[in-house]
Formats: sequence, C-alpha cells, structure tokens
Amino acid sequence: MGKLLILGAGVMGSAFAVPAADNGHQVTLVGTASDGAIIAALAADRAAHPRLGAALPESITPVAIEALSREHLHDVDFVILGVSSPGIGWAIDKLREVLAAPKPVALLTKGLQGSDDSLRSFPSQIAEALADLGIQRNMIMGIGGPCIAKELADRQPTAVVFAGEDRSHLEALRGLTQTAYYRVALNEDLEGVEFCAAMKNLLAIAVSAMWTRHQERNPQPHKPRAMNPAAAVFTQAVREMAGLNAWFGGRPETPFGLAGMGDLNVTVGGGRNSRLGFLLGEGMSLEAALSGPLAGETVEGADTALALAGPLERAFAGNRLAAGDFPVTRALLACIRDGEKLAIDFETVAFV
Amino acid sequence: MGKLLILGAGVMGSAFAVPAADNGHQVTLVGTASDGAIIAALAADRAAHPRLGAALPESITPVAIEALSREHLHDVDFVILGVSSPGIGWAIDKLREVLAAPKPVALLTKGLQGSDDSLRSFPSQIAEALADLGIQRNMIMGIGGPCIAKELADRQPTAVVFAGEDRSHLEALRGLTQTAYYRVALNEDLEGVEFCAAMKNLLAIAVSAMWTRHQERNPQPHKPRAMNPAAAVFTQAVREMAGLNAWFGGRPETPFGLAGMGDLNVTVGGGRNSRLGFLLGEGMSLEAALSGPLAGETVEGADTALALAGPLERAFAGNRLAAGDFPVTRALLACIRDGEKLAIDFETVAFV
Repeated sequence: MGKLLILGAGVMGSAFAVPAADNGHQVTLVGTASDGAIIAALAADRAAHPRLGAALPESITPVAIEALSREHLHDVDFVILGVSSPGIGWAIDKLREVLAAPKPVALLTKGLQGSDDSLRSFPSQIAEALADLGIQRNMIMGIGGPCIAKELADRQPTAVVFAGEDRSHLEALRGLTQTAYYRVALNEDLEGVEFCAAMKNLLAIAVSAMWTRHQERNPQPHKPRAMNPAAAVFTQAVREMAGLNAWFGGRPETPFGLAGMGDLNVTVGGGRNSRLGFLLGEGMSLEAALSGPLAGETVEGADTALALAGPLERAFAGNRLAAGDFPVTRALLACIRDGEKLAIDFETVAFV
Repeated sequence: MGKLLILGAGVMGSAFAVPAADNGHQVTLVGTASDGAIIAALAADRAAHPRLGAALPESITPVAIEALSREHLHDVDFVILGVSSPGIGWAIDKLREVLAAPKPVALLTKGLQGSDDSLRSFPSQIAEALADLGIQRNMIMGIGGPCIAKELADRQPTAVVFAGEDRSHLEALRGLTQTAYYRVALNEDLEGVEFCAAMKNLLAIAVSAMWTRHQERNPQPHKPRAMNPAAAVFTQAVREMAGLNAWFGGRPETPFGLAGMGDLNVTVGGGRNSRLGFLLGEGMSLEAALSGPLAGETVEGADTALALAGPLERAFAGNRLAAGDFPVTRALLACIRDGEKLAIDFETVAFV
C-alpha cells in the first residue's frame, strides 16, 4: 500500500485523493490554515466538503494543520501540494518544518514566481528553497492537464499529465494514482508543463471575456454567449502560449498537449478565472471585479499576470520576443497590471 | 463596387453575404434546388430566412436556381460555393452550365472526396472538373476558421482564414469581405486548410459525444455535461488532425490555427455534427440517430468519415501511418462506416 500526503484541502487537493484512495492507498489530506472548516466537516462526514460538492472516500484521513507533525510525513511516498498559488511560499515553509527526510513532491498548485528580474516555475522555486533538505530538482513533479476537481471527485474520465525529470518518480506516482477514469500521460518537460498550466489560467480570462464582451454589438441577442469570438481568441491564446513557452524554455509540443490547449479548453467557462473574464468582458474594471463580485477570492490567472509582466516587458524591450505577436497577453497585462479596460480588439489583433 | 455570387442559400452561404453587403458590394444569393422556400421568403423579407434566425441586408439579391443564368455570372468577381458537402458535385455541374468565362471560386463548403483509391480536397476535385472551362487551381480558394453562421449574420466578431495558392486572389476577396467584425487571415496552405476544415466536422462528433457519454458513471449528476472528458478528447483530436494533415499533404502549423483547432473549438456544442455526437455518446447507433432525431439532415462529419475510411485503412496497412496513433479517428470510422457503437475508451486511448 502506498502513502500520499496532500497539503491543501481545497477542491483540487481533495479531489486528487479520490483515485489514490480508490486504488487502496492511504491518503492523508491536510488542510491549510484557511481550510479549518473543510477539515472539520470532512472529519464528521466525507460527503460534507463545503466546496467540492462530491463525496470523498471514507478511507482518507483529514488532518488539520495544527495537528500536522513529522510523524505524518516520515513514511509517505509522495507529498502533493494542493494549495492555491499565493500559498506556495507558506507551503514551502511548512515543508521545512515537518519534513524529516527528503520526499518527492508533486504540484497541483499552478503559477509562476516573478519579479522584475526573473521568472521561475514553482518547481525551480521549491528546488532552491528546499535543497538543503535534500530535495533535488528531479524529485519535484508537476501535474497538468484538464481536470475540473468536482468531475474528478465524481470519477468522470479525464487524461492528465505528470511532468518531471526523473522517470522512476513519475512512474511510481502514476502507479499509485492512475485508474480507469484518471489517465496519466508522462512528460519530461517539467518547465513547459508548469509554464503552460500557469498561462492557461491567465489566457482563460481573455477567452472567457469573449463570452460577454461582444453582446452589446448583437442587435438580436438570441444567445447568451457568442462562440465565434471565443474560438478566435482561444486559437490566438494557444499560439501566444506556444511563443511564450519557447521563450521560457519549455518544449515546443507541450502547449499543444493536455497541459496547454487541453487545460485551457476546460478552464474556459467555469471557475474563478473565467468569472473574472466574464466581468472584464462586460466592461468592468479589474479593481471593481476583485472588490465586488470576486471579493476575497484568489484568481490565479491574475497572479500569473503580475509574475509575468516585468520579465515579459524586458523580453520585448530587448527584442527577445516581438511584442506584436502577443496582443492577447499584452491586453491582459494592461488590464491586470495597469488597471486598463480589457481591450481585445478584432480590428487590430493579427489572428493566426 | 465588387460583385459576388453565392451558390447556396443555407445558413453559411447566406451569412457570408453580410460582410460583403456591409462593405457596399453587390451580392447575389442563389438558392439550390432545395433552397426554394428560403429564396421565396427572402424575396419577401430579408429578415425571414427560415433557418438563419437573423436579418440579411436589404441590398442582397435573392435568386432562385431556376432563374439563374449566364447573365448573373458574367461580371462577378468571385463565385462563392455555399452548398452542403453532398452538393459539391451538383454545384460543379451547375457551374459548367452557367459559367461563360473563368472566375475565381471560393469554397465555404467543407468536405473530402474519397474512394477506395484516393482522397482529394474539393479544390482538387473542382480544378480537375472545371479545367476545360479555364478554372485553374490557383483560382480556387478555401474559407476556414471558426464561424457559426448566425453569429456572423449578427455581426459578432470572428477571425477566419482564406486559403489559396494565388495571393492576389486572396487579397482581392479579403478586400471585398473583411470588416471590423469579420477578420481575415491569409494562408497559402489550401490543402491543409481544406483538410482540417473537413476533419473538424468528423472530430467534433467524438468530442461532443463526451458531453453525454460518461453521464451514467456519475453518481451525482449535478451537471448536464462533463467537461474533463471532452477536453481530453479535444486535445487528442487536434493531435490526430495534425498527424492526418501531414499525411494528406497539409502544412504542419495549419491544424493548430483557425481552420483546425479554432474551428473544432466552435463546432463542438452546436450544429448537426455535435447533435450526432450527443446521440452516439448516449449509446445510440448511427443508424438509429440518422433515421430518428437527425432524419433528413446532412451530417457532414459522417460524410467525411466515409470519404476518409478507405484511404486511411490503406495507409495503416502500408505502414504510412501508425494506426495506434489515431484511436479517436478509428473509433469514429468503426461507428460511422461499420455501424459499431462509438467506443472512445479512456482505459486504452493513449492521450498526449
């Protein structure tokens, strides 16, 4: 029997417990400081997750963060990070506290760490932060691909990708978690999978904005959603993801696989990134959206924009990337970083 | 002022009249033998198209097929074919009757002409059939990309691609039809655009089937549609489109552009190909679907399957393509050609 410890009991961390538990493995689901109510509810009833809307297997063990100890980690096979992107620093600190021995770490968490000077994947950040604990880069894996958490918890089929530089770790994690409904492809392009998975959150905002943006031009609004503009921007978004992924150091095929196009496809239309897109498409400012309908929520694509903005401006200024090739990304940055209205203008965007 | 003649007054042929008419050009919209009621309705009221659900500009001239004469064609700049795919042979015969001089021809019609021995694009078929009328291959263009007809008629923005081997014809047609809401990219890969545009109709059947197929496995069906399986199969479908497009002779980037991924994106979820997919996903046989809910309707993706089947089997048998790389396409052919239930099995499909 294998042992997994999942740090983060939000919808994705919780759903990831399902295939492993179905395979008969032992899963400890640890809530973060803000998951206290979730852990308390799960301790009473595995069907009572306040946000997932699906029952978890009885065999999982919910653990509150206050109760987490080195004992919980000493014999686990894998640590899974399921915190939201702003929690990655907290999660690293927590691992420093409780990891007595090096363990392979797999990330459900998606995002980028950026500053004016640098842009890094979370695996790079973790490898640096935890090197002194013996956690080598080849022990860190990323999990990408289309996976709405509630659907996974309901055992709807999907196909995902585990990425990392050590094939034996990838195969071992797949061995514990692959089921008839949770199909796992392996990919050695860790940087590309992590970059595309983060970018899809940002780009989904733009595609989703097309569902609402052009309604006022429609003289006979028979349909609540225009699909042509969304499809055109989806195509352009994947093209831009591919260009940026190459710049970041990912492999050329990754944006066109499950972690890129596939996850963008499923991210458009549901979740917080899309809800922000719908509001921006209606003409709301970012500030109004984040202080109004989305108050208190984490919109991971917006964090990706802030991480990306500085390094990307530098790449444009240094002619390492042609700014004109990235109209959708630039419109998103102008909106999210600079507070402008989201302007994806069909008259000036050069489509594929 | 430019002059366009559109042959076929179904939803797509009719909608294509809108941007050209908005640009002030003269558009003659000719119904086929089965479009008689449409032309009669439009002659009385441009808002009365029985299927489009949107008003056409007053300036267009509806013409019944019985009234079509050489006079209508002698000074047109472009002939646009907007018939459905099974009507392509009829359209070629009609052009033979009424074309007094060679004219550039652009195809909204999407499909493939296949036999056991060969697989051809419609432009290749037309170029051969009309060569003696002076219609050279470089006078034939294809129109691809995401474009739901009703949305175009409502002037919702989209981006499409005009493909052909003569840039001057492409630019001239774009000059007549591009508007603020109808954005036109140009592409010299005529074969690739035509192949991908035909394949997306077939592949959309498989992706749409995922919206209904796995519902019975869902113990708590909160949502009418599962999106994870559709996103996984969408990604696999684009991968298979790319592999087949290379075999057909298209360029490698075309499947990842507007005519491939972009049009597949918008085709899933609406239209007859998707409706067939929903029914097959629920476990209905092709025969039951086509003789029941879809009786009398043209499902172009099914025609694409029949055209593709023989040449593809030959390519697999001759090891020019690896059958194992095309599980979704093979499942579609087994269903549409051989009458089997549609089986896209997550346990055996090797995803990207």
